[in-house]
Amino acid sequence: MTYTVHEIAKALDCEAFGNIDIVVERVAEPASASSTDLALLTNPKFADGLSQGQARVAMLWPGADWQAMGLEAAIIPTRGRYAMSGLSEMMDLGQHYAPGIHPTAQIDTTAEIGADVQIGQFVVIGPRARIGSNCVIGPFCHIGADCDLGDDAFLRDHVSIGARVSIGARFRAQPGARVGADGMSFVTPEESGVEKARESLGDQGEVHSQTWARIHSLGAVTIGDDVEIGANTCIDYGTIRDTRIGNGTKIDNLVHIAHNVTVGHDCLFAAQSGIAGSTVIGNNVVFGGQVGVTDNTTIGDNVIAGGGTKILTKVAAGQVMLGYPAVKMDTNLEMYKSLRRLPRFMKQMAELQKSVSKRGSND
Amino acid sequence: MTYTVHEIAKALDCEAFGNIDIVVERVAEPASASSTDLALLTNPKFADGLSQGQARVAMLWPGADWQAMGLEAAIIPTRGRYAMSGLSEMMDLGQHYAPGIHPTAQIDTTAEIGADVQIGQFVVIGPRARIGSNCVIGPFCHIGADCDLGDDAFLRDHVSIGARVSIGARFRAQPGARVGADGMSFVTPEESGVEKARESLGDQGEVHSQTWARIHSLGAVTIGDDVEIGANTCIDYGTIRDTRIGNGTKIDNLVHIAHNVTVGHDCLFAAQSGIAGSTVIGNNVVFGGQVGVTDNTTIGDNVIAGGGTKILTKVAAGQVMLGYPAVKMDTNLEMYKSLRRLPRFMKQMAELQKSVSKRGSND
Amino acid sequence: MTYTVHEIAKALDCEAFGNIDIVVERVAEPASASSTDLALLTNPKFADGLSQGQARVAMLWPGADWQAMGLEAAIIPTRGRYAMSGLSEMMDLGQHYAPGIHPTAQIDTTAEIGADVQIGQFVVIGPRARIGSNCVIGPFCHIGADCDLGDDAFLRDHVSIGARVSIGARFRAQPGARVGADGMSFVTPEESGVEKARESLGDQGEVHSQTWARIHSLGAVTIGDDVEIGANTCIDYGTIRDTRIGNGTKIDNLVHIAHNVTVGHDCLFAAQSGIAGSTVIGNNVVFGGQVGVTDNTTIGDNVIAGGGTKILTKVAAGQVMLGYPAVKMDTNLEMYKSLRRLPRFMKQMAELQKSVSKRGSND
Repeated sequence: MTYTVHEIAKALDCEAFGNIDIVVERVAEPASASSTDLALLTNPKFADGLSQGQARVAMLWPGADWQAMGLEAAIIPTRGRYAMSGLSEMMDLGQHYAPGIHPTAQIDTTAEIGADVQIGQFVVIGPRARIGSNCVIGPFCHIGADCDLGDDAFLRDHVSIGARVSIGARFRAQPGARVGADGMSFVTPEESGVEKARESLGDQGEVHSQTWARIHSLGAVTIGDDVEIGANTCIDYGTIRDTRIGNGTKIDNLVHIAHNVTVGHDCLFAAQSGIAGSTVIGNNVVFGGQVGVTDNTTIGDNVIAGGGTKILTKVAAGQVMLGYPAVKMDTNLEMYKSLRRLPRFMKQMAELQKSVSKRGSND
Repeated sequence: MTYTVHEIAKALDCEAFGNIDIVVERVAEPASASSTDLALLTNPKFADGLSQGQARVAMLWPGADWQAMGLEAAIIPTRGRYAMSGLSEMMDLGQHYAPGIHPTAQIDTTAEIGADVQIGQFVVIGPRARIGSNCVIGPFCHIGADCDLGDDAFLRDHVSIGARVSIGARFRAQPGARVGADGMSFVTPEESGVEKARESLGDQGEVHSQTWARIHSLGAVTIGDDVEIGANTCIDYGTIRDTRIGNGTKIDNLVHIAHNVTVGHDCLFAAQSGIAGSTVIGNNVVFGGQVGVTDNTTIGDNVIAGGGTKILTKVAAGQVMLGYPAVKMDTNLEMYKSLRRLPRFMKQMAELQKSVSKRGSND
Repeated sequence: MTYTVHEIAKALDCEAFGNIDIVVERVAEPASASSTDLALLTNPKFADGLSQGQARVAMLWPGADWQAMGLEAAIIPTRGRYAMSGLSEMMDLGQHYAPGIHPTAQIDTTAEIGADVQIGQFVVIGPRARIGSNCVIGPFCHIGADCDLGDDAFLRDHVSIGARVSIGARFRAQPGARVGADGMSFVTPEESGVEKARESLGDQGEVHSQTWARIHSLGAVTIGDDVEIGANTCIDYGTIRDTRIGNGTKIDNLVHIAHNVTVGHDCLFAAQSGIAGSTVIGNNVVFGGQVGVTDNTTIGDNVIAGGGTKILTKVAAGQVMLGYPAVKMDTNLEMYKSLRRLPRFMKQMAELQKSVSKRGSND
């Protein structure tokens, strides 16, 4: 798919300059751009790269002097990073899955399939599942019994949607994403060491061996509109009520969302983060990579947690958290700076102690 | 599947009160229960929810006054959480996989398939594999050559069992679980920087670039009875001996069990925890989410490690651990409290130092 | 496959002693070795096990007195761990996938398949994909459109290779590995709280709710020769340029490599480690399990990071890192020792303060 500079600028609602009829085929970084590429250069820091490539056209930062850069045309958005969203959507080369419904797909006769749906090789769709219109379902996907998948979903290959899962419009799932695995919920006949250690903050009392009885997941998963989940990410069923993901929430690769968790709208969870059972996450919450949140707690709206943060208690709305255990980021930095100085500080104090005790003996 | 109050109480060996012939269709939380639901209310904390729902019957905590709550019947177990196990098993709606052996399944002619086995669409079963009776094998599962899968297994979709893996009775695997991936074992021709840094605790000596030679996995995986593994969890082959998981151990999503690891019976590992190569884990060990255990170490029976704990050394039986590096939970809390106070403490000490030195100069 | 002691010693370029015509069938640990096994005993620490087993032949450490151990033959390599590489390759029992190209495989007519390729059940190969010679592609693999897979690849089952991914020779992928998932890249119309909190180190300013716009991945993934990736590991597409993995790099299970990351040659990443977007990793870098690296940073050549380390800033070449946040391992150990002593130290200092203030009042 190729576009003129004019077409791109119009689609992105940006200003265009110079020869706006030039056709571009691809987006490239300045240094590796060919003469048919649109160089992406929205950060002046990387301007030097332009001279190493062949670009005639670039998307530039506001105020950039495109002519001085030797370009023939330029597109200048007000917020370059945001313009990348529309531009990348136009230029996406896609997966080229086979069109239509592949003859190898196994679709239960009671499933309802919407209009203009694309279903790949070896897909399995269970009884009474409902697939909205314009969905693309990649090879090896399994859509379980009684599922509801909204319009315009795009499922890459090997995605699992368990029975009774309900998903809104424009869902995206990367390869190997799992929605509707059973929750990890086990119970011992008598109170367990874990229950005791939690109450006592560390003492599990007298220990005797017990086996685990399974609590089956009777709840399902309900996912809102415009949700995206990453490769090999897992979202478990709820125990009684559904596990819930709000509209517009985006989840990266290898993330774990446990049973009964409720996630608000427009959250962003980076890779390998994990949320334990029954925790409630507010709206617009952002987690860096490898963040962990304990079970049965509450994270307020607009909370941000930096990479690796382990949240062990409730967090109020709007806080920026870091560390293990998580504290406010500025507190964490202050604690850390002190810890950094601690070995030297202890030596100084030992000197002080010596001098005091010496002076004491001299009194 | 519907049951009378009487049938449920009898199955769970609980007391029932009131109109025990009422039929219930589903289990629900009190606030969202309909008139045909059994409200689950084993914690008095949530009693207020009952008035918001339509439940006529509830499962309650010992001593609860069901009549005062306006209920028509009640089931009262001695330990509500434990009763949930039996109740949820009765009420589990299941996956509704296609019955029998699906014609698209590719089963090697030398495989032995037990009685009453259900095999889903596009399943592949390799040469000489043995599948016990009453197993359910979901779509897209791969059971490798020479595997042994015990009776009553329940495999969700997309599960991989590598060649030569041996699994006991009543195994459960969630979607995308991998048993029998190759162990990650590489070696350099000369001693590597890692080997040197481990010996010296931080000094890798003179560095020169080496390439990694692969150590193939000659061992397999042996799993006991009543084991469950979560979605996208990975258990690697052993190098020479088998990697081993004991009876009754339950493993959550996205967990990593490396080559040669031995896990005892009745352990519980929460999501995203990981155990490095050749480590030995005792019985009844419980790990919270994102726990890590280093390689070639030993964790005693009944150890509990809180979420995010990174265990870098041997842990004696019965200890409750927390932190990175892991220490006993009470030690961790004490250290952490001190660290929290440290910035202020350092200021106080600076004052003290000033006052001592001032006094010293006044002497 | 069986070998004589002579054949093994010759293949591994080791010295052999005693009756070198004895045939061995398997490699075993000393204590469990049968009379047809080669006992692996390259560490004198485990020598006691030999008497518990039936081995007549062993691979031993340099200088070991094989005759005194009652063995009939011995193989003595100069570096036992390294010899295991060649030995284990010879003795690998393999997966026994079906030979040839399975009739159920769906191979696009425009794909180019090399000589002597083995393609398993239900494999899907997309349009214009190129598969090198001698590749083994396990059941349920998906090789996307326009991919390039080099010679001698070995893909276990359920592997996903997205469209346009390019991979060198001798690639190995464990079950459920995902190469070419979309990068997690989202942008808000206005500057987000995360962008503000990063600049201010913790203050996200006035908070107002925004939704996330998707940045599509226009780049692909380029992987060098001799790379191996573990079970359920995920490597994302780049945004504009490709995500890159250098020659000889080995990646364990459940690892996340984000968009635009560049990894050098001969690196080793243990399980559950994760590298955030646009970070550049040098050559011969080794990460323990659950290591995390922040986005847009640089890790020099030969860096080693211990298990659980979270790297939040640039790391110079050759450093050995540990902790969260990562610091040099010796600094980490020193800080940690001080922290361990801190509660007691604070009590001592309180005593000191009391004695100083008492003395002060006595002045």
